[in-house]
Parts: sequence; C-alpha cells; structure tokens
Amino acid sequence: MTNDKKTRVSVDIYGQTYNMVGSESSSYMRQVASVVDGKMKEISDRNAALDTAKIAVLAAVNSVHENIQLQDEIKQLKIELRKMKG
Amino acid sequence: MTNDKKTRVSVDIYGQTYNMVGSESSSYMRQVASVVDGKMKEISDRNAALDTAKIAVLAAVNSVHENIQLQDEIKQLKIELRKMKG
Repeated sequence: MTNDKKTRVSVDIYGQTYNMVGSESSSYMRQVASVVDGKMKEISDRNAALDTAKIAVLAAVNSVHENIQLQDEIKQLKIELRKMKG
Repeated sequence: MTNDKKTRVSVDIYGQTYNMVGSESSSYMRQVASVVDGKMKEISDRNAALDTAKIAVLAAVNSVHENIQLQDEIKQLKIELRKMKG
C-alpha cells in the first residue's frame, strides 16, 4: 500500500467507533464527528425512549434543516452582492 | 387539544415512519425528510454491510460536513460584502 494522502482517523460518535477516511485534516474530521456526537446526545437527552438509529436519523434531519437555512442565507448574500456590484 | 399552529407531519425515512412536529410548512418538513432518506440510501448503496444506525450516523456526518463548508462560504461572502460597503 502506498501513501495515498488520505487522512484516516478513528472517531467516537455516541459510543461507537468509526474509522473515517477523507481528504480533510484529522482535526477537521474530529470536529465534524464531535458535532454529530453532540447533536445525538442532545436529542437523546430530550427523548430518552429513542433507539440509536432514530437518534441518528433525527440528528441528520436537524443537520439537513440547518443546511437548507444556510443555503438560503448564501442565496440572499449573493443577491445583495450582485446588487452592490450593479 | 387546541390548535397550537404547529405543523405535524408523518414522514418516511429509510423505511421507518417519523411523526415530525415543527414550525415550518409540511412541504418543507417533507423536503428535509426526503434529503435525509436520499443520503441514507446513497450511503447504504456504497456500504451494504452497515446497519441502519451507522448509516444514519454517516448521513449526519455528511450533513455536518456540508454545514461547515456552507458556514465558511457565508463567512467569505460577508467579508466580501463588508469590503464593498467600504
């Protein structure tokens, strides 16, 4: 195996270990994992009866919702920029 | 029970029904659910051995990664706008 410049990092998300491979830095990948871990803990704190799969699905739902909001914000900022550039 | 203006919608994500409650429209909530469902199907297509919880965690990881990229883009657009406003 040659060094293919991929970052390999082992992260813990909600008590489970994941071996992640990516082109980003290991600290970035740990940051992403830590955000997901935090979201899952927050959801399980509010809904003690949920199993891990549902908690993870709700964490994904929450992230996708944020995603759509951010995309809207980008759209607005681009409109504003275009107006200023005349 | 009084009508409290919350939207209640039943969505299907990766073969499981979720009763979602939120302040957004039901079509928006369905859109979010459909994005999560699509991400999970894509991940399971690439990794047949993963269980639902892991697929959902990876969908959340993917979304949080996208979120961080979008937040970076917003930061850059705001810097650009600030420069133009002088």
